[in-house]
Amino acid sequence: MATLRDPRGSPDIAQPLARYAPYRRAGDFIFLSGVIAVHPATGLIVRGFDDIDPTAAALIGRTGEFSVDIKQGPILAQSWYVLDSIRRTVESIGGQMGDVQKLVQYFKNLDHFPYYSSVRRLFFPDIAPASTVVQVSAMLPTEDILIEVEATVFLPPTTGV
Amino acid sequence: MATLRDPRGSPDIAQPLARYAPYRRAGDFIFLSGVIAVHPATGLIVRGFDDIDPTAAALIGRTGEFSVDIKQGPILAQSWYVLDSIRRTVESIGGQMGDVQKLVQYFKNLDHFPYYSSVRRLFFPDIAPASTVVQVSAMLPTEDILIEVEATVFLPPTTGV
Amino acid sequence: MATLRDPRGSPDIAQPLARYAPYRRAGDFIFLSGVIAVHPATGLIVRGFDDIDPTAAALIGRTGEFSVDIKQGPILAQSWYVLDSIRRTVESIGGQMGDVQKLVQYFKNLDHFPYYSSVRRLFFPDIAPASTVVQVSAMLPTEDILIEVEATVFLPPTTGV
Amino acid sequence: MATLRDPRGSPDIAQPLARYAPYRRAGDFIFLSGVIAVHPATGLIVRGFDDIDPTAAALIGRTGEFSVDIKQGPILAQSWYVLDSIRRTVESIGGQMGDVQKLVQYFKNLDHFPYYSSVRRLFFPDIAPASTVVQVSAMLPTEDILIEVEATVFLPPTTGV
Amino acid sequence: MATLRDPRGSPDIAQPLARYAPYRRAGDFIFLSGVIAVHPATGLIVRGFDDIDPTAAALIGRTGEFSVDIKQGPILAQSWYVLDSIRRTVESIGGQMGDVQKLVQYFKNLDHFPYYSSVRRLFFPDIAPASTVVQVSAMLPTEDILIEVEATVFLPPTTGV
Amino acid sequence: MATLRDPRGSPDIAQPLARYAPYRRAGDFIFLSGVIAVHPATGLIVRGFDDIDPTAAALIGRTGEFSVDIKQGPILAQSWYVLDSIRRTVESIGGQMGDVQKLVQYFKNLDHFPYYSSVRRLFFPDIAPASTVVQVSAMLPTEDILIEVEATVFLPPTTGV
Amino acid sequence: MATLRDPRGSPDIAQPLARYAPYRRAGDFIFLSGVIAVHPATGLIVRGFDDIDPTAAALIGRTGEFSVDIKQGPILAQSWYVLDSIRRTVESIGGQMGDVQKLVQYFKNLDHFPYYSSVRRLFFPDIAPASTVVQVSAMLPTEDILIEVEATVFLPPTTGV
Amino acid sequence: MATLRDPRGSPDIAQPLARYAPYRRAGDFIFLSGVIAVHPATGLIVRGFDDIDPTAAALIGRTGEFSVDIKQGPILAQSWYVLDSIRRTVESIGGQMGDVQKLVQYFKNLDHFPYYSSVRRLFFPDIAPASTVVQVSAMLPTEDILIEVEATVFLPPTTGV
Amino acid sequence: MATLRDPRGSPDIAQPLARYAPYRRAGDFIFLSGVIAVHPATGLIVRGFDDIDPTAAALIGRTGEFSVDIKQGPILAQSWYVLDSIRRTVESIGGQMGDVQKLVQYFKNLDHFPYYSSVRRLFFPDIAPASTVVQVSAMLPTEDILIEVEATVFLPPTTGV
Amino acid sequence: MATLRDPRGSPDIAQPLARYAPYRRAGDFIFLSGVIAVHPATGLIVRGFDDIDPTAAALIGRTGEFSVDIKQGPILAQSWYVLDSIRRTVESIGGQMGDVQKLVQYFKNLDHFPYYSSVRRLFFPDIAPASTVVQVSAMLPTEDILIEVEATVFLPPTTGV
Amino acid sequence: MATLRDPRGSPDIAQPLARYAPYRRAGDFIFLSGVIAVHPATGLIVRGFDDIDPTAAALIGRTGEFSVDIKQGPILAQSWYVLDSIRRTVESIGGQMGDVQKLVQYFKNLDHFPYYSSVRRLFFPDIAPASTVVQVSAMLPTEDILIEVEATVFLPPTTGV
Amino acid sequence: MATLRDPRGSPDIAQPLARYAPYRRAGDFIFLSGVIAVHPATGLIVRGFDDIDPTAAALIGRTGEFSVDIKQGPILAQSWYVLDSIRRTVESIGGQMGDVQKLVQYFKNLDHFPYYSSVRRLFFPDIAPASTVVQVSAMLPTEDILIEVEATVFLPPTTGV
Repeated sequence: MATLRDPRGSPDIAQPLARYAPYRRAGDFIFLSGVIAVHPATGLIVRGFDDIDPTAAALIGRTGEFSVDIKQGPILAQSWYVLDSIRRTVESIGGQMGDVQKLVQYFKNLDHFPYYSSVRRLFFPDIAPASTVVQVSAMLPTEDILIEVEATVFLPPTTGV
Repeated sequence: MATLRDPRGSPDIAQPLARYAPYRRAGDFIFLSGVIAVHPATGLIVRGFDDIDPTAAALIGRTGEFSVDIKQGPILAQSWYVLDSIRRTVESIGGQMGDVQKLVQYFKNLDHFPYYSSVRRLFFPDIAPASTVVQVSAMLPTEDILIEVEATVFLPPTTGV
Repeated sequence: MATLRDPRGSPDIAQPLARYAPYRRAGDFIFLSGVIAVHPATGLIVRGFDDIDPTAAALIGRTGEFSVDIKQGPILAQSWYVLDSIRRTVESIGGQMGDVQKLVQYFKNLDHFPYYSSVRRLFFPDIAPASTVVQVSAMLPTEDILIEVEATVFLPPTTGV
Repeated sequence: MATLRDPRGSPDIAQPLARYAPYRRAGDFIFLSGVIAVHPATGLIVRGFDDIDPTAAALIGRTGEFSVDIKQGPILAQSWYVLDSIRRTVESIGGQMGDVQKLVQYFKNLDHFPYYSSVRRLFFPDIAPASTVVQVSAMLPTEDILIEVEATVFLPPTTGV
Repeated sequence: MATLRDPRGSPDIAQPLARYAPYRRAGDFIFLSGVIAVHPATGLIVRGFDDIDPTAAALIGRTGEFSVDIKQGPILAQSWYVLDSIRRTVESIGGQMGDVQKLVQYFKNLDHFPYYSSVRRLFFPDIAPASTVVQVSAMLPTEDILIEVEATVFLPPTTGV
Repeated sequence: MATLRDPRGSPDIAQPLARYAPYRRAGDFIFLSGVIAVHPATGLIVRGFDDIDPTAAALIGRTGEFSVDIKQGPILAQSWYVLDSIRRTVESIGGQMGDVQKLVQYFKNLDHFPYYSSVRRLFFPDIAPASTVVQVSAMLPTEDILIEVEATVFLPPTTGV
Repeated sequence: MATLRDPRGSPDIAQPLARYAPYRRAGDFIFLSGVIAVHPATGLIVRGFDDIDPTAAALIGRTGEFSVDIKQGPILAQSWYVLDSIRRTVESIGGQMGDVQKLVQYFKNLDHFPYYSSVRRLFFPDIAPASTVVQVSAMLPTEDILIEVEATVFLPPTTGV
Repeated sequence: MATLRDPRGSPDIAQPLARYAPYRRAGDFIFLSGVIAVHPATGLIVRGFDDIDPTAAALIGRTGEFSVDIKQGPILAQSWYVLDSIRRTVESIGGQMGDVQKLVQYFKNLDHFPYYSSVRRLFFPDIAPASTVVQVSAMLPTEDILIEVEATVFLPPTTGV
Repeated sequence: MATLRDPRGSPDIAQPLARYAPYRRAGDFIFLSGVIAVHPATGLIVRGFDDIDPTAAALIGRTGEFSVDIKQGPILAQSWYVLDSIRRTVESIGGQMGDVQKLVQYFKNLDHFPYYSSVRRLFFPDIAPASTVVQVSAMLPTEDILIEVEATVFLPPTTGV
Repeated sequence: MATLRDPRGSPDIAQPLARYAPYRRAGDFIFLSGVIAVHPATGLIVRGFDDIDPTAAALIGRTGEFSVDIKQGPILAQSWYVLDSIRRTVESIGGQMGDVQKLVQYFKNLDHFPYYSSVRRLFFPDIAPASTVVQVSAMLPTEDILIEVEATVFLPPTTGV
Repeated sequence: MATLRDPRGSPDIAQPLARYAPYRRAGDFIFLSGVIAVHPATGLIVRGFDDIDPTAAALIGRTGEFSVDIKQGPILAQSWYVLDSIRRTVESIGGQMGDVQKLVQYFKNLDHFPYYSSVRRLFFPDIAPASTVVQVSAMLPTEDILIEVEATVFLPPTTGV
Repeated sequence: MATLRDPRGSPDIAQPLARYAPYRRAGDFIFLSGVIAVHPATGLIVRGFDDIDPTAAALIGRTGEFSVDIKQGPILAQSWYVLDSIRRTVESIGGQMGDVQKLVQYFKNLDHFPYYSSVRRLFFPDIAPASTVVQVSAMLPTEDILIEVEATVFLPPTTGV
């Protein structure tokens, strides 16, 4: 089925690409596995604006100029996809982005940071969580991956009235 | 003494190679230092099947073919050594591998991932913990190190009878 | 004002260089953002002994020999600045260095490790926290950054008399 | 004098940095020399937002986030400076940006194209002139130069009333 | 529509891939933007014989040998596509290839020159225009682009009978 | 015949090395092909002082010191040869160096610029034409070529007495 | 037709990709051309488990883990495809794998040897033929090719009763 | 003697450049040493069209355009020289090109394959022998060598009438 | 046993290091697997004069000068070991070095050729067999291997009296 | 004091940048330490014409053209500074440049030799001392250093009347 | 004998590793050959603290931390070994370290300078001799060598009672 | 005159290639400039056996095998030429090779050391002078230079009968 190859609008939570847990709850904490821009069901790697939801693409800066979008599309689309995956995962366990306490962000090329930062602002309009940023030499599964984000969430039980 | 140079079968927990704690307990959590395949007592770096327990070597895929084993031995043996060190450490503090919640796994070369993954499955037969994997450009102490794994363990007090 | 360009002796806590929180408290834990040797108010990057407090410079090994200090100054001064920033942050929230449970330490060049280790010993005279060390290919904001340290602190409420 | 080192707001036309003409008129055409972001009077190379007019910096995307601006500042500021120099030159000879017929644009790194394109749109709100874009390995005078633009202008005599 | 993805036989003139003019007339001259082998409507990059008209492919040297065509196809097909785009543009404004006065030809690898030269001879059977040839390190939009050609045309008004 | 191999003193105009025109007249403009230091008749590439006229060699800085001349000879001799070829071409069509309006100058290594600049001053004692300078990764026909210059000339008909 | 693009299960013998013989019989010997993992009819290059027969993929080690299979798939699948092509060729001329006397095996990366060796064992369960293994810098037709195998077969006429 | 330096038209068979046999007969087989484009008597390396017979040069594609011939000449001329050497050797022992059963062809750069293939077709108008092609990092005696070909010939005794 | 680690004087024939035949007889021909300088029983790689028989070391040029022998020892010792292995193999099947018809010789660095050639002359005092020499980028099992030699032997049955 | 940062016109002798003697007298000989272009009192590295005496700058070839001077300034200014330091040292001990017997000259890039040679001629108008010139990969203290010169002086006691 | 492999405490003077003199006396001068950290009797290369006298190791900074010592050990131990060899040589001919007039110090990596400098201070507590320091690309005998020091000694005959 | 281009047998002493002295006498010492294998009168660089005296070529190891001599010829011939130049210089001033006290030997590639050492033994049959050997990245005048040797000679006045 064609939609199997389409990660756009997928309601899935971030699901790892190998035999490990997408997240683990330990006490009040949830540890998410590092998330990359690969659709869990299809293995499709996000390589540009065409691989994400058009509304999101417009929101994060698609210009319609071919040469511009082919250059900035990969990092912008992956940034959106990764953060949106984290959002869906957090919401699936009853939390929201404000519950994310720490992000470790691995880049393949730190010149991409301004693009990522502009997208992250959409997910954390006020102030982002405690944050570590480094450039590594590669990530799984292929050289197309430009960013991986690992989140730590704090979600204590809410005591009702 | 010769056995000082032999990491095989050592009952030691993973002990860091510099002046830092092998692990720290904080509330219900235990943070392990990043573990590499160096025997803490002798400084011997695991470089192949010959540097680990023969039974383990057989288990993780030693073929007996010289050229094959010299190629796949280093990563397989280091993977086994590192995960076994984590296991021994966790058990020494009263836990077991199922209590490990998160792994951050640093590789020198991600082409080694299939080898590591096959070994990790032996330690986590069901599903591995939340997991982050990146390729870095080097680790301590030398260029022979192919993998470093950092584990976070959750070990709340068990209420007695 | 000249002192704006002078990070020496600044009482500020480690403040991140972008729109993310310098640290986040979650239950009994405090997660610090990765810290680099850039003065938060001025953006001045620490590049050598001249960019830190002279007393600290003397303490960590300034020799007064031009060629020696120009070689070892950058990593020694950054190591001091980063760990001192962590100390100030931890103290600002009522803790002390002994409450730091885990350090993830990213280096641009692991040949710098002996220098860093000699400085860390000043901040952790007994034994350092659980510790992970890797070499990455770059950090923010520029190529001058040689080290980034991310700390996890455990600070449960102290029950008074 | 301090203002000698300040290229901001300078009313100068683009003046070459060696013994060649900033432009040559030949019949109805004006050929401009390739323009780079170096202030002709002081030799100051534009390296970021701080080296251009603050209003322009705000207009072209300065965010105030240290790590973001240090990454995108150099190309955005050079793009603005170079195109503004061309504008001042063209106006100094009685023309305007709409009279520019052709641009040859040399980049040091074509990943900068989206940044440049966003600035060029400010100077050519409708449609830019005929345009050639290539990445070269270096430009004068130093490795800091990220872009050079050569313009051809058509300015036939206007017959008066 | 499938034909949207097919650049073969397209009657379009060379249209730039960003917000700049495909060409500009200035007096008797027409300046064309640098042309690359990307179909303006679809963004399809010409990567081999399969991406151009089969008749043209045969004409420029397709052999039918897999390994030969996969090696020489990209440069031959791009050369044909680029020069044919220029031809279509020139004809669309009432000129012909003989009116092209100057070509600036950018290559990614000058070892491709013999292939390009054999194609150019088909478009300029007598003698090609004034010609400049250099090897640059990259062109827009991606690393697949092997050649970019910029043409200057002279097309004075023809006085009728 | 030996003189066939000797480019010195040749009265030839700059003639391209492939099937394209050495120059094209279009209205009042003459577009020259990019000129490199290869003798059109013999294919001899200018590699040092020995390959040009001894008087010119002396004029442009031959020192007679072996190691000095072997280092600076190639760029000085090529600079002289290329500009002299342009001069001969321009004169052959009734113009002179002062009629050159624009130069695009491609270098293999911009560290050669001071040498080229000192030679160009001999051909343009007052002020050189509008000028663009970039470093490219290669030129035709071989790696020995250090510089290529493309000239645009304006030569309107002179009205007689 | 879709099956044209499907090399799986194809009964074809190994057929070269250019104008040379897939094999030559000379006396009792058959010399096979070097075989690579490209389907002769379609030119499809084998790039992973998806490009070969699913039964074979399972047999040679497909795990179903995305990141594992994307790493080990290319070499495992090419190894299977190449040896299976040789098998089909040998059988088409009345022989079997035991008649192969010598293999020359070219690798792009000898770290792949353990994977290849595990596949070869399936085709030669006892002992493989005389064998030479080297790593070369490239093979035809593209950089995707990881292995090429050249076989020499001995097939004397069998004298029947 | 001048002709000593001229490999053109030489009636010599391919003779190795060191103390090994140009070929060996073993039963019905003749094994030729790997052949490179160096004239055995003079050590002259074939570097272009000028180093082979003019008729052959014309036949294999000399264009007379300087820049084209300097680029494609080396591989075309070496291909011709090497295959012609093999032809002469085979004929000297009573065989012909059709008796060649296998070719192992080593290239320095496989982008040269189309050129070589066009020449090989002249020597094997129907179908070439079983064929292996790889790219190696160097051959004897110098970096100028672009191709080496090793041939196996089958030449059983012809039984007379 | 210590002698297990000593390849010197070993009477073993060349035995491959993986599951393939050291040689195969096919009719009158024997095909040897490619031989490298690794002792089959112990896996010891020959790295210098100390790893071979002292008499052989003296014969092939050991000087006793430390820096000289450490530089030339590896290739000289490996050359001797490899050729001596071939000799032992050939003799074990009833032949002698004169029966070797063809050698394919793979080098890691062709600058080693003079050393190898001087050793080969000891094994083939008259004239070496048909010979192919190329430089490859690696061989099995490790980077220490400098040479691999593949031999083809012709050994027809000798008819007795 | 500002003049502390100004090496121009300083009467100091060449003073080393670490704890070693600037020179040593041994019998009639004086051995100077290797001299680089760093001002001993301030640590200021000479990076161009602006860092030396303006009169000297003019003397050694400052042109006033920005791009020319930024290219040739560093090596010309360092050459002058180093040789002038040697001169001042030699004179401080009662000798003169003619007493220098040997120079060992280390370059970072030997393409700088013509510039250095032109400056050296000013200090040794007749003939320079015995001279050794090599290119090394780095010098102390930083990558800005382009040249280091070590001088040996002969200064026997002069017997008075 | 085991002590043959132990350079620690050896009373030998620095003895060269090839057929050249360890030093030469010429008049009042003694020229030492360049000294490296290889034990003359055994050829053992000093690779860390374990290869030198434990007392010396402690003196020059061994920390006992594995990762620290493995990083700084090689250069510290080689520095000590080389300078101690020079000391022993000088003393063997009746001099002492104060008689050394000049040192030429070759490094493989000048980032090692601070380590070397700290050791040199132990041998020259006051002020070191005239000194030249450069970084070269390699030294004899292997890549393990990090430093080579050449000393010139002045030792006039002492007249006295 | 042809002999001008022939360095063989030339009675000249080693003469530097720029404006510096070939040697300087200072008291009893003679300092020679660094010597390279370039003929002073003609500038001919020694590139192989053909560029030196045939008797010397035979003496130092010419084999007559083309591939061997083309590999080992350059370093052997340059070694001979350089040492022979030193010999001629020393003899021209009344000394002999035994008077050489120190040699500093710069190599472009230390793998050449065994070749050089074998030649040096011819000039110093007993024991060579004090000796320093390093590998540098380049020497004057071109990349063809493989070795440079600097000699220090001690030649006190001989008291007569």
